Amino acid sequence: MIEAEDIKNAARRIAPYIHQTPIFTNHFFNAHFGAELFFKAENLQKTGSFKARGATNSVLKLTEAEKRKGVATHSSGNHGQALAWAAAQQGIPAYIVMPENAPAVKVKAVEGYGAEIVFCKPNLAAREESLEKTMQEKGAVFIPPYNYKSTIEGQATAALEILNSHSDLDFILAPVGGGGLLSGTALSASFFSEKTRVIGCEPFAADDAARSFKAGKLIPVKDPNTIADGLRTSLGDLTFSYISRLAEDIITCSESAIVDAMKLIWERMKLVVEPSAAVPLACMMEEPGRWKGKKVAIILSGGNVDVGKLPF
Amino acid sequence: MIEAEDIKNAARRIAPYIHQTPIFTNHFFNAHFGAELFFKAENLQKTGSFKARGATNSVLKLTEAEKRKGVATHSSGNHGQALAWAAAQQGIPAYIVMPENAPAVKVKAVEGYGAEIVFCKPNLAAREESLEKTMQEKGAVFIPPYNYKSTIEGQATAALEILNSHSDLDFILAPVGGGGLLSGTALSASFFSEKTRVIGCEPFAADDAARSFKAGKLIPVKDPNTIADGLRTSLGDLTFSYISRLAEDIITCSESAIVDAMKLIWERMKLVVEPSAAVPLACMMEEPGRWKGKKVAIILSGGNVDVGKLPF
Repeated sequence: MIEAEDIKNAARRIAPYIHQTPIFTNHFFNAHFGAELFFKAENLQKTGSFKARGATNSVLKLTEAEKRKGVATHSSGNHGQALAWAAAQQGIPAYIVMPENAPAVKVKAVEGYGAEIVFCKPNLAAREESLEKTMQEKGAVFIPPYNYKSTIEGQATAALEILNSHSDLDFILAPVGGGGLLSGTALSASFFSEKTRVIGCEPFAADDAARSFKAGKLIPVKDPNTIADGLRTSLGDLTFSYISRLAEDIITCSESAIVDAMKLIWERMKLVVEPSAAVPLACMMEEPGRWKGKKVAIILSGGNVDVGKLPF
Repeated sequence: MIEAEDIKNAARRIAPYIHQTPIFTNHFFNAHFGAELFFKAENLQKTGSFKARGATNSVLKLTEAEKRKGVATHSSGNHGQALAWAAAQQGIPAYIVMPENAPAVKVKAVEGYGAEIVFCKPNLAAREESLEKTMQEKGAVFIPPYNYKSTIEGQATAALEILNSHSDLDFILAPVGGGGLLSGTALSASFFSEKTRVIGCEPFAADDAARSFKAGKLIPVKDPNTIADGLRTSLGDLTFSYISRLAEDIITCSESAIVDAMKLIWERMKLVVEPSAAVPLACMMEEPGRWKGKKVAIILSGGNVDVGKLPF
């Protein structure tokens, strides 16, 4: 079980390395919803997403012997970049398993942080086998992207920062893929605010969390097709246990709402956000009346997007 | 003459209305130049550009009788939006003269702030005639976009904010079109820092300021063709007098460097900036050795760009 003290310790531990990201308000969105919105800009976080928090916390909690041998994960996305960077900050090795067909821009980003890339065939079995082999050969510690205590503690620090400056929020909305950010956010709200309810936001096209939440049991989905590439993973057992217990609701949105919300954030807030980060605003747009008169914080989870290939 | 006290008063006057915008650092750019860079994010300013500063200062300095009759200007760009917004903040009328062929998105932005748009034929004579007519009919006060004391005082507050938190800068770089921002920046540096030199940054394709600075006399250019649409205007007599006296240098960059720098800022800083705002970084990239070991602030002047029509 993660306790309040674990999250506070994580915040202190990672403070020298990560950004305490700004929280922006926006007159246009406030007027649109008749609400007070607060945008936590984790797209401005180190490595371009909140994943730097969990990765840094996980690396710092290793023993000195473990650190010498390094860390490993399988992720061509934000967690892979974040772990590569977090390891480099501590001067320890990182091994990132990526499929041979990973986009060149993602390979370059991980290489840029000095990690060693282990290529594998683009399927789940090959990925897990490559990770297992790397761990055995190098003695590296596997740092999972979401279903892992240290990762969740780190992600929880984003909501802790929000609540430190805005203690009277009605809601915090966070996107949900594997559920690390949503678990951490729900934990922080339960510990650090009497009033604040946490709502997970998910593409309708990848609604395993919404279904699992309603059914009260884990219902993973296979290869969902959504533009929000950070949210294609399903919940794990650990994240499901926190979310089913502590979240108020899981709401969903259409693909076109994601594109619209993303474009509006770019135009109105002048912030580059990735599709996943636009999902909470997209979900709000699907039921605009629900937020009237409320104070709502949204976690803009990341900004890693190919700006040369936009959906608008 | 603008004095230090005028700029401090402008800062106090506009403080309730404008954002004290954040200053960002970026590891990638620091490593690239071997320098310490500080980015003043005026793209996050109200109305999406620093122009909100000068417009607000100009509006607030009017007499009550003048305020009742309102303000006017001819600008389909950032100054037009900023003046429309600044007038709306004070509940006074604004008349914005725009060419009939102005992009719908710019017309909509000005209308969105509640200003009255006066359309005219798309040429200089028609524009000035429409403005003159509006001033006579409505009794509105003309608020010029750059060649105007109150406007320059307002723009100077951006550099004042930078120097308040970073007093030991070697350089501040600002883009130069009509020269309001550069004049204000040079004035603030001359008053509030012993050390800091100010450099104007201009597209080579619109290099009237560079030529004028070298020649020691005003040399306007006609219809320059640059992607940096905010920098197509030439210096005025007032801005030239400040810049020629107080700026250290005017440097230029190619169009391709502007596109490259803009894309890098989007990708690396996750900030939406317009081409004009990327010009200082583009100019730095044209002579990368000049900045080694220096502390350099860059004013990211604005973020008003059609995100559906990008040059990359």
